[in-house]
Amino acid sequence: MMTTPLMIPLLQEAVDSLRMLPSIGEKTALRLALHLLRRPQEETERLGNALIALRTRVRYCRICNMISEEEICPVCADTRRDHSLVCVVESIRDVISIEETGEYNGVYHVLGGVISPMDGIGPDDLPIAQLVGRVSSGGVREVIIAISKGMEGETTSFYINRLLSGTGVRVTTIARGVGFGDELENADSLTLGMSIKNRTPLL
Amino acid sequence: MMTTPLMIPLLQEAVDSLRMLPSIGEKTALRLALHLLRRPQEETERLGNALIALRTRVRYCRICNMISEEEICPVCADTRRDHSLVCVVESIRDVISIEETGEYNGVYHVLGGVISPMDGIGPDDLPIAQLVGRVSSGGVREVIIAISKGMEGETTSFYINRLLSGTGVRVTTIARGVGFGDELENADSLTLGMSIKNRTPLL
Repeated sequence: MMTTPLMIPLLQEAVDSLRMLPSIGEKTALRLALHLLRRPQEETERLGNALIALRTRVRYCRICNMISEEEICPVCADTRRDHSLVCVVESIRDVISIEETGEYNGVYHVLGGVISPMDGIGPDDLPIAQLVGRVSSGGVREVIIAISKGMEGETTSFYINRLLSGTGVRVTTIARGVGFGDELENADSLTLGMSIKNRTPLL
Repeated sequence: MMTTPLMIPLLQEAVDSLRMLPSIGEKTALRLALHLLRRPQEETERLGNALIALRTRVRYCRICNMISEEEICPVCADTRRDHSLVCVVESIRDVISIEETGEYNGVYHVLGGVISPMDGIGPDDLPIAQLVGRVSSGGVREVIIAISKGMEGETTSFYINRLLSGTGVRVTTIARGVGFGDELENADSLTLGMSIKNRTPLL
């Protein structure tokens, strides 16, 4: 479908740009562009400017690599948080997810990926030395490794754990188990097995 | 989910702006914003500027109301097209769909909607008088009404047909029937009935 170019270059360019976004195909891109034409001009200007501002003004926290508008991100700058507790995650998205739980009051260390020889990503391509530096400089009592399971994630966790083993810091990982509201019969057996092994006292 | 504000205002603003788009929820908006952060800055600038350019620079063709970058749209300005054949459609999207077929060489008249008393849209809110004017000023031999079925569409078609009935122009409508590749059993009975009534000679 839509192999013919759209007759209006302005529209074509908007559609082509929108299509670069993940999971937005040609039909959706056209629908979004035509939607903007029906809305006040201010809305489109707000959207366009917000995206450009995000991309051009964003920085990465000097301490934890989370995105930030300042040199230090709001979490690292927050004196009410427990800076002796560092949670190591793969991505910015993970930090946002953990913050949403409202259960965590420590700080983070964003790796931006995992060790993946297949993709040519070695330990030196990730800010692992920076993490060790944070721990070595003192004040950290526990490092929680919250990296996804799977071979690459496990390799990364193992590697970090080994580097930290000499520092005396406590290294933990997040609990794995059957999710709240999930049926046992739908859980994969690795998860269910983990859930039984790491059982906790009933309230 | 995500009731807590995102910690970075730049990111929050990008997500809030993206969420104004149809069928883009909070999770998708965040995914799109984080995607842009992983891509070259030029891509985001291209997208933002393309959307703003579309919305601020677009005009509407003085003759047919199609979107255009000039006073007259490319279709109306094209002397190789048959200007005696005018296809009346509801939307810009419809023009694009018909153009994609490659089967039409006439020109258009974009109504921008249909008569809808429920939504407070009367005949005077649509460029129907403008259509009658185009026909009355001569040079038009046929008006094809390509408006969707349903009560409002039918009302609009009927109204336009009545206004044009005195002008001597031929008024037609697009064929309705079972789509290519559609199973008869899946067609609604109105469509199937129309398909039998308007049967054509077998090749």
